[in-house]
Amino acid sequence: MRLSRYFLPVLKETPAEAQIVSHRLMLRAGMIKQASAGIYSWLPLGYKVLKNIETIVHEEQVRAGHIPMLMPTLQSADLWRESGRYDAYGPEMLRITDRHERDMLYGPTNEEMITDIFRSHVSSYKDLPLTLYHIQWKFRDERRPRFGVMRGREFLMKDGYNFDLTKDDALHAYNRHLVSYLRTYERMGLQAIPMRADSGPIGGDDTHEFLVLAETGESEVFYDSEITDLKFGDRQIDYDDVAQCQSVLEEFTSRYARTDETHDAALFDAIPEDRRRSARGIEVGQIFYFGTKYSDAMGAKVVDHDGNRVPVHMGSHGIGVSRLVGAIIEASHDDKGIIWPEGVTPFHAGIVNLKQGDADADAACQALYDSLMTLGLEPLYDDRDERAGAKFATMDLIGLPWRITVGPRGLKNGVVELTSRRTGESEEMPPEQAVTRLAQIYGRAM
Amino acid sequence: MRLSRYFLPVLKETPAEAQIVSHRLMLRAGMIKQASAGIYSWLPLGYKVLKNIETIVHEEQVRAGHIPMLMPTLQSADLWRESGRYDAYGPEMLRITDRHERDMLYGPTNEEMITDIFRSHVSSYKDLPLTLYHIQWKFRDERRPRFGVMRGREFLMKDGYNFDLTKDDALHAYNRHLVSYLRTYERMGLQAIPMRADSGPIGGDDTHEFLVLAETGESEVFYDSEITDLKFGDRQIDYDDVAQCQSVLEEFTSRYARTDETHDAALFDAIPEDRRRSARGIEVGQIFYFGTKYSDAMGAKVVDHDGNRVPVHMGSHGIGVSRLVGAIIEASHDDKGIIWPEGVTPFHAGIVNLKQGDADADAACQALYDSLMTLGLEPLYDDRDERAGAKFATMDLIGLPWRITVGPRGLKNGVVELTSRRTGESEEMPPEQAVTRLAQIYGRAM
Repeated sequence: MRLSRYFLPVLKETPAEAQIVSHRLMLRAGMIKQASAGIYSWLPLGYKVLKNIETIVHEEQVRAGHIPMLMPTLQSADLWRESGRYDAYGPEMLRITDRHERDMLYGPTNEEMITDIFRSHVSSYKDLPLTLYHIQWKFRDERRPRFGVMRGREFLMKDGYNFDLTKDDALHAYNRHLVSYLRTYERMGLQAIPMRADSGPIGGDDTHEFLVLAETGESEVFYDSEITDLKFGDRQIDYDDVAQCQSVLEEFTSRYARTDETHDAALFDAIPEDRRRSARGIEVGQIFYFGTKYSDAMGAKVVDHDGNRVPVHMGSHGIGVSRLVGAIIEASHDDKGIIWPEGVTPFHAGIVNLKQGDADADAACQALYDSLMTLGLEPLYDDRDERAGAKFATMDLIGLPWRITVGPRGLKNGVVELTSRRTGESEEMPPEQAVTRLAQIYGRAM
Repeated sequence: MRLSRYFLPVLKETPAEAQIVSHRLMLRAGMIKQASAGIYSWLPLGYKVLKNIETIVHEEQVRAGHIPMLMPTLQSADLWRESGRYDAYGPEMLRITDRHERDMLYGPTNEEMITDIFRSHVSSYKDLPLTLYHIQWKFRDERRPRFGVMRGREFLMKDGYNFDLTKDDALHAYNRHLVSYLRTYERMGLQAIPMRADSGPIGGDDTHEFLVLAETGESEVFYDSEITDLKFGDRQIDYDDVAQCQSVLEEFTSRYARTDETHDAALFDAIPEDRRRSARGIEVGQIFYFGTKYSDAMGAKVVDHDGNRVPVHMGSHGIGVSRLVGAIIEASHDDKGIIWPEGVTPFHAGIVNLKQGDADADAACQALYDSLMTLGLEPLYDDRDERAGAKFATMDLIGLPWRITVGPRGLKNGVVELTSRRTGESEEMPPEQAVTRLAQIYGRAM
């Protein structure tokens, strides 16, 4: 993309209303614009990051054997009356009346709707196990929305639901989700720690939250420092392998890690003192096993091997897709702006032309642009007639992990400059070598 | 995908409530489930088609130089009061009150919101031309929703908005959209004819609707039969080339083609009698040029070359993404079920194992499956222990364009059967040749 043709409305001023760094930087980098309280438009740059995160979530869900679908945003109140949650849910549920005076609501979650789909179509253990998920906009009418997309009212969430014949099967689904989530977050450049948590209005006994450590996190967390040494890495997982999923879960949950809701001071104090940590964390996902809570209430039963009709065991599993954009920024930024991890960056590299209009510089930039595009990499080429300082400031603010700087002086020596946004280190090299380096970094075949 | 692990709840009975063929087939093929009146869940098979259509729309929009972003579903009523449409819009607008008693609405379209974004960030002609678009769920509270996704209440639409300094520039944007839409629909296997139409509540003088001919179409249309001979084909378009876009528009709009709203009997009668056609059509898109209607009302102005602040010229351009799923089925089905065009099919081919459990048949199916996956093609492998007739009926119903039938008898002779869903013709060939043929059909390199 050529910046002269893009819509990237960066702000010079720091918006007064933004209290936390991700909100400030998303506004300043032209990623979002508030439409009304807690409701945002995703401007082109923000939308690209949101899409990248969504794509990673989809890919990892499908890898784990979960089946994508899509439920609507608006739901009938009747379903929620069946589960008893229509009255139980507080004013955070946005209640709507349509032109025929029917009670509707903007879905904050989908346990009821997916259970209704299941009971309408599945009646035998032979169709299990089954995990369905979708990524759809939700609404929670927060009393005081704030922190930008971190606590918005309209937000994008992946929510998945497993249906299993037995508790053991459902616990495997739980483990499978935990494992796939570890991989999902790591691909985004995040360390998200699974912590024992409280189940809240979803219900159930078993639940883990995934928390990203960040000073601005809404939760206080307590953990054994050894947990931050764990890496998921490149391990090959067979998601049907019960023992393997169980063993990964144990590896990542055997050390103490809890939110303040479930914190146990005695257990915490049993950790060697030099490994005790308390910090702030941002919740970016949660998994639940809640057994037959919804299948009992809504009659979602299947015939088992003995011909008996039994309620299915269920769980639900969420990833906060839009919230993750903010969480990644909270975890990865500096004074100059955002620092995108390679896995989610909106553009793979920036190209800065130090002298727009200089025939050599223009040609070299265009050649770099074309080479990167041919590799399936998408550069953002700052082709504006601006001074170098302004171009660098924009690139630093929007946080592309790599920048190629092209100027007449370097070109005389046959070199351009490749700069890492994270370290700030620059290296001169021939343009072709910069392309090769980026191909390696992003795993593209030359 | 192995069918034994998929969620494909096909129905044996024809649902009584479905009045038109696409609605019946989408329910029978397990593509959708009604959540409430005019609101649907997209089950896995339907979701895949919806996504394929969405992807084509995105690709062609980006090819035309339009910039993707995403606006929220809920909007503040205040913006609509500025344009005067809050009161003008009838009961089809779903009006919502939040917990703080603020007036909101579920967006039926986004002219106001995009104009607000524009005026907040753009103030100079230097930032023009600009076309922003998004694909987002909309809501129209139809009094009598029906025909499944064809006239639903919650529907997915691509809506794009161009901002230009002059009327001429905006008319180029109009032409560019018309050209890109021709290409978009053709990739979906549809012939969508641009017809002069009425602008309705959006406003403006220039507007074309795109209509797909189908018996169940909601509009009566009149056209010169020569128009159906026009093909967009493989032509290379430079979307910045004003004359080229204009010439394609003229080619596709110079013959008579109008809906009943703009029909002119005298002009129609001037066509040679053997070329006069009247038929039914389904609207799948519409483009508008409406000048400064919204920029005047909402103060969206830019400084021009002479330093004067002038209102921008705008247009809006929509494609009914969810409606297209139904429209494609209306245009492409037979007594047995759906016939997907290759461009949007949910799976590239079906694999039917005639004797599940037979070692040779199972191995041959698995080998075909793996070969197709390696090529980036996604087969649906019916690995259930069902009789052949039931497997064929399911494949015909869900409409995959190609089926490979694998049985012990054929394998003894070293062959499988490749069947076209459209023609019903079958051909025996070695398995490797079936893979080669599918690679050619879908343009995949071997």
